[in-house]
Amino acid sequence: MTTMDGPQRSRKESFFKNFFRPSDHGLADNFRLTSFVLLNLLEGFDDVHPRQQYTDNESQPTTSGINDGPVVSSCAQTTVGIGLDSAVIELKDKIHSLVQTTDFLYPLIDDPYIMGKVACANVLSDLYAMGVPDCDNMLMLAGIPMKMTDTERDVAFAQMMKGFSDEAVAGNTYVTGGDTKYSEWCMIGGTATAIVKTESVILPYGAQLGDSLVLTKPLGTQNATFAYQWYQEGGEKWDKLSGVISEDEVQEGYFTAVESMIRLNKTGASLMAKHRAHAATDITGFGLLGHANNLARHQTDPVSLVIRKLPIINGMAAVERSIGDRFGLLSGKGIETSGGLLISLPQEEAPMFCRSIKDIDGFDAWIVGEVIEGDRTAFLDKNVELVEAR
Amino acid sequence: MTTMDGPQRSRKESFFKNFFRPSDHGLADNFRLTSFVLLNLLEGFDDVHPRQQYTDNESQPTTSGINDGPVVSSCAQTTVGIGLDSAVIELKDKIHSLVQTTDFLYPLIDDPYIMGKVACANVLSDLYAMGVPDCDNMLMLAGIPMKMTDTERDVAFAQMMKGFSDEAVAGNTYVTGGDTKYSEWCMIGGTATAIVKTESVILPYGAQLGDSLVLTKPLGTQNATFAYQWYQEGGEKWDKLSGVISEDEVQEGYFTAVESMIRLNKTGASLMAKHRAHAATDITGFGLLGHANNLARHQTDPVSLVIRKLPIINGMAAVERSIGDRFGLLSGKGIETSGGLLISLPQEEAPMFCRSIKDIDGFDAWIVGEVIEGDRTAFLDKNVELVEAR
Repeated sequence: MTTMDGPQRSRKESFFKNFFRPSDHGLADNFRLTSFVLLNLLEGFDDVHPRQQYTDNESQPTTSGINDGPVVSSCAQTTVGIGLDSAVIELKDKIHSLVQTTDFLYPLIDDPYIMGKVACANVLSDLYAMGVPDCDNMLMLAGIPMKMTDTERDVAFAQMMKGFSDEAVAGNTYVTGGDTKYSEWCMIGGTATAIVKTESVILPYGAQLGDSLVLTKPLGTQNATFAYQWYQEGGEKWDKLSGVISEDEVQEGYFTAVESMIRLNKTGASLMAKHRAHAATDITGFGLLGHANNLARHQTDPVSLVIRKLPIINGMAAVERSIGDRFGLLSGKGIETSGGLLISLPQEEAPMFCRSIKDIDGFDAWIVGEVIEGDRTAFLDKNVELVEAR
Repeated sequence: MTTMDGPQRSRKESFFKNFFRPSDHGLADNFRLTSFVLLNLLEGFDDVHPRQQYTDNESQPTTSGINDGPVVSSCAQTTVGIGLDSAVIELKDKIHSLVQTTDFLYPLIDDPYIMGKVACANVLSDLYAMGVPDCDNMLMLAGIPMKMTDTERDVAFAQMMKGFSDEAVAGNTYVTGGDTKYSEWCMIGGTATAIVKTESVILPYGAQLGDSLVLTKPLGTQNATFAYQWYQEGGEKWDKLSGVISEDEVQEGYFTAVESMIRLNKTGASLMAKHRAHAATDITGFGLLGHANNLARHQTDPVSLVIRKLPIINGMAAVERSIGDRFGLLSGKGIETSGGLLISLPQEEAPMFCRSIKDIDGFDAWIVGEVIEGDRTAFLDKNVELVEAR
C-alpha cells in the first residue's frame, strides 16, 4: 500500500529507473560502495557502520572532545560558540563572523553519486543549523580505498566526488579545493565556510519557555538504508523483515530516505530569522534525542526539551520493532545521516514555519515537542506519538 | 661526527631525553603509532606509507583533481586561484578574501604529540605559501583507529590531538572545532582559514625572469624518519644502513627532520611581501620537483624553474644512495612532510631573505635555483649540487 502522492511516486519511479547499476559502468555486478568500509573488522559491531558507535554523546571517545556534534574550543576567550554545530569566530572588523564546520562520512548507500550528494548536504547542514543559509566556500576531503580497482576509482569514486560538487552547486556554493588521499576505508566529507554579519548568526542558546520544537525531516534514514540493503541481499535478514514490510514499502522507504538526505536544510535555515527562531541544531550521528540533549545543555535559560512526536519514514517503525529497537529509532536515538533541523521557535510561529517548508520544499515539517521548565535536558514524553512520514 | 652547533646539540639531547616511551604512559613497549596505518595491506608498496604513491603529480589518481598540491576549482568564475596551495575566494565587500586549505596525514612518526604538531604545521603551510602569515581559524579532523585500545586512545591519540592544538597556538591561531570518527587507519589533519585583504595574498603566478628560488627547509624528512625506524627495529634493513651511517647520525638526522617538520613556515610567509616575492609553494607530498613543476605550470610569463642545489639533511644523501635513490630524494622527487617554502623572488632580495630566516628562526634557508626562460616546467640542473643541511 503506497502512501506517496502522485509527483513523489513518479520521482520514485524515475529514481529506480536511473538507479546506479555497476555493470552499466563497466564494473562488476557485485561492486558495492558500502563494502569499502570494512565491516568485518568492526568486532562487536556486527552489520553496523562505524558511526553506530555514537549512539549518544556519552559513548563518544573520551579523547574526542572535538566532534561532529558539540564543538569544544581550545580557546574559549576568542571564540563565540562552544558546543555549536559550527565554530563562530568574530572577525577583526567586529561586524562579521567566520562560521565553519567540517565533517566526513563513510558510505552508507551504494550509489556513489547520491552518496556524494548526501555527504555534502550533511556538511552544509551544520552551517544551516546556525541560521546561515549562504555558504561562501567548500573544500572536499576524500579517502580513496586502497582496494578499489582503477576502474572502480575512475567510475565510482569520481561519481561520488561529482555528487558532492553538484550538491554544493545546488546549495549555491562551490567546492574550490580539498585533499584526496588513499585510505583503507572509503570516506567523503569536507568543510563549509561562511562569512556573515555576526548579528545574523542564530546561536543555539536562546530557547524560551513555551517555544515549540519543529523538526524538518523525518527520522529513520538508517533503518531505511539497512532495510534496503537486506532486501537487496535477499538472505536471512530479509526473510525476517519480509514478514513486516513489503518490497514496495522497502523501496519507498529507501527512496524517501534518499530524497530526505540529499535535501538541503537551506530552506529551513533561511526561514529561521523570519520566524524568530531562538535556537537550532541538526540531527545526525547522535540521533534526535542526542542532539536535543546537546541543544538543551547549552541553553541560557533553565529549560528542557520534551519530544512528544517522532515522525518516522513510512514502514521503518515496523522494521525497527522487528529488530527489537536495535537502532534506537523508537526511543529517539536512531542515528541519522543528513537529518533535519530541530528548531526552537515561538509557538505562534511554528505552524507557519512548517507550512513554509511545505510550500517551498514540498516536504512536511512537524511540531515535535516543546520547551518546558527544566534542568537543560531532553527527553521523550511517555506518551510519545509515532507518526508515519514520507 | 656531529655537524650540529652547541644549541642544536643540546636541544637534540633534551629531545631524546623527553622522547615518547610508550611504557612511561602505561602502554605496551611495542606500541607504535605508525603501526595504525596498515602497511601490510599496501600491496606493492612494501614498507612505504600510502603517501608514497604520490611520487609526482603524474601518479596521482585520475579522479583526484582536487588534491593536496594543486587545487582544481569546480567554479572558475568565482574563484581566484586554480592550482594554488589554498583556495582564495573574494568576499562580497570586494576588499577581503577568504583563504582556505585542508589536509590530512597518516602517522609517519611514533611520538603522538610531535605527530600532531607536524600535522598542524603541514596544514598551515598551505596558507603560508600564499604569503598569508596569520590564520584566523583551524578545524581538526581526526580518525581514531578501530584497533586502538581504550588506553592507547586516551593516551596516544589524545596527545596527538593536543600536539595539533598546541602547534596551532604556536602559530597564533586556535582549533575551534572539527570532526572525529573511528576509522581503520589513524589519521590527523584539518582546515586552516584566513580572511585577509585580497591585495595582500601573493598568488603564485608572477615569477619573473632572473628571480632566485629560495628553499626554507632542508629535504630528506622521509629518509630521516624511515632510517630512524629501521635503526630502532634493528633488523636487516639497519644492518645494511649501518655501513653508510652511524647511530649518532641517524639520531641527528631524525631530530633535524622533526625540528624541521614542526617549524612553521610562518616566518617565511611574513617575509614574502617585504622581499617582494613573486610566487611560492610549499614542499610536501610531491617532493621539491613535483611542487616546482606545479608552480612553473601556473606562471603567467613563459618561464621555467631550474634547481641547481639540493639541501639535504645531513647523512640522508648517503642513506638514499644505499637504497638506490628509491625515495627519489637525489632526483628532487623525495616526498616531504611539512617541508619548506619554495619562493621566487628578485635575485637581489634572496640573500637578505635567507639571512632573515636565519636571524628569526635560527635555521638556514638556501638559494636553490633560478627562474629562466622556458615552457613552464621545472627541472634539475645537470650539475645539481647536493649540500648537507642540518
